[in-house]
Amino acid sequence: MKIHVVKIGGNLINDKKLLDSSLEAFCQLKGNKVLIHGGGKKANLISDQMGITTKLIQGRRITDKKTLDIVVMTYAGLINKNIVAKLQSSDCNALGLCGADGNCIKSSFRLKRTKTDIDYGYVGDIPNKSSINTSLIKLILENHIVPVLCPITHNGKGSLLNTNADTIAAYIAISLINYGEVELHFCFEKKGVLRNVHDSESYFPRIDFRLFQKIKKNHSIKNGMIPKLENAFFALKNGVSKVSIGLPYYLNDVKNKTILCP
Amino acid sequence: MKIHVVKIGGNLINDKKLLDSSLEAFCQLKGNKVLIHGGGKKANLISDQMGITTKLIQGRRITDKKTLDIVVMTYAGLINKNIVAKLQSSDCNALGLCGADGNCIKSSFRLKRTKTDIDYGYVGDIPNKSSINTSLIKLILENHIVPVLCPITHNGKGSLLNTNADTIAAYIAISLINYGEVELHFCFEKKGVLRNVHDSESYFPRIDFRLFQKIKKNHSIKNGMIPKLENAFFALKNGVSKVSIGLPYYLNDVKNKTILCP
Repeated sequence: MKIHVVKIGGNLINDKKLLDSSLEAFCQLKGNKVLIHGGGKKANLISDQMGITTKLIQGRRITDKKTLDIVVMTYAGLINKNIVAKLQSSDCNALGLCGADGNCIKSSFRLKRTKTDIDYGYVGDIPNKSSINTSLIKLILENHIVPVLCPITHNGKGSLLNTNADTIAAYIAISLINYGEVELHFCFEKKGVLRNVHDSESYFPRIDFRLFQKIKKNHSIKNGMIPKLENAFFALKNGVSKVSIGLPYYLNDVKNKTILCP
Repeated sequence: MKIHVVKIGGNLINDKKLLDSSLEAFCQLKGNKVLIHGGGKKANLISDQMGITTKLIQGRRITDKKTLDIVVMTYAGLINKNIVAKLQSSDCNALGLCGADGNCIKSSFRLKRTKTDIDYGYVGDIPNKSSINTSLIKLILENHIVPVLCPITHNGKGSLLNTNADTIAAYIAISLINYGEVELHFCFEKKGVLRNVHDSESYFPRIDFRLFQKIKKNHSIKNGMIPKLENAFFALKNGVSKVSIGLPYYLNDVKNKTILCP
């Protein structure tokens, strides 16, 4: 069987119309599928409304206890349940999960390697493949239910932790390779990985690991795109058949996006 | 098999220590079990922080769109996922659900019978027993997973709806009577249904339907206790073996609480 693991993020989550059309495209995918969503900007909005300042160091969010509460409310509550209700209304039998649900994804507080390392607070990293409860995901898929995962995990000791959604998508894809041919799709509001950020048509149709190293070195790509591509190549190296990056509308297409290859 | 359906509500949710000890008591219950939680006061706190006024008419919350977002965040996100993480840390394999997840509980916008009826907004009532997706709950229980339900349902047309948690508990209990002997426990911060609200020891050890009618008529009980007891007797009339109301610490006990009987 084919298993599609789809991550939707970026501005697709913040805009109701974009989100709805992304979910429509997801519904049309045939076969087994898993959805993973992000939602950072929405959490910033809620933080602002609650008068809580978002702390960023080197562009990364510091998750103190109050911020953790906000991301849990926003990701696992507001965004996840609205996505599930929308999919249900389109006859897609979705079931929302965070990593604590059924011990789905276990993580560990991000390690501080030296005393001067930044303390990210309630941020969880996934230690390895065995941190994914594959049998639960498999049970859900076998019952024709579509798991919808938000980027909240747990450490097994009672703490919820904020985890990168792209990393979750890569690990979920890898965890399923023994059950079928797994395709991983990173969807956002652009056509693919752009050569020139100011030209929306300038996407690379194909990036292999060598090209990735090159464009990383010459700064053609930067910021969030580098870890996204690192997750993509990590998935490819660990048995995922295909990884694509692009618009959600071309999920079923082979063209009009960036295809990653080993 | 015996199935325990436990509702925790009231001040048990707002106080971390009370909640933790309620969850410990729940963990010690043997056999199949389902947890349903409320959380109204926490939602009021979040509303206040966000500068959104909670509208109450005759003591009942009016759920406009902004309030719906807050209850979804609070019930399905903050409260539900923290409960699940806590249970997981106590080796109880919990999985949090709202009614939209796996189409678990379907509801309908509350009917306005006359033009002058109050419009409660995004409030959902459960039309009948078939609104519960019993096969999903059964699948979860059979896999030794403990469902943890929050009082958010959906109408199947994309709307999440705010639903009374006691009513959900009664319907879930009724939906499971074909799979075992179902006991329904309503837990809160009091020892039971009190004869005198100012005397915490004055609980009725036993209330039958006749006594219920009497104490409702003579105003010994009022406000939230009346619908709770109505839900309790509705469950008893529909095949639930036993209904109790009291502290969570006596979940395994036959004494120290109010037992309802037909």
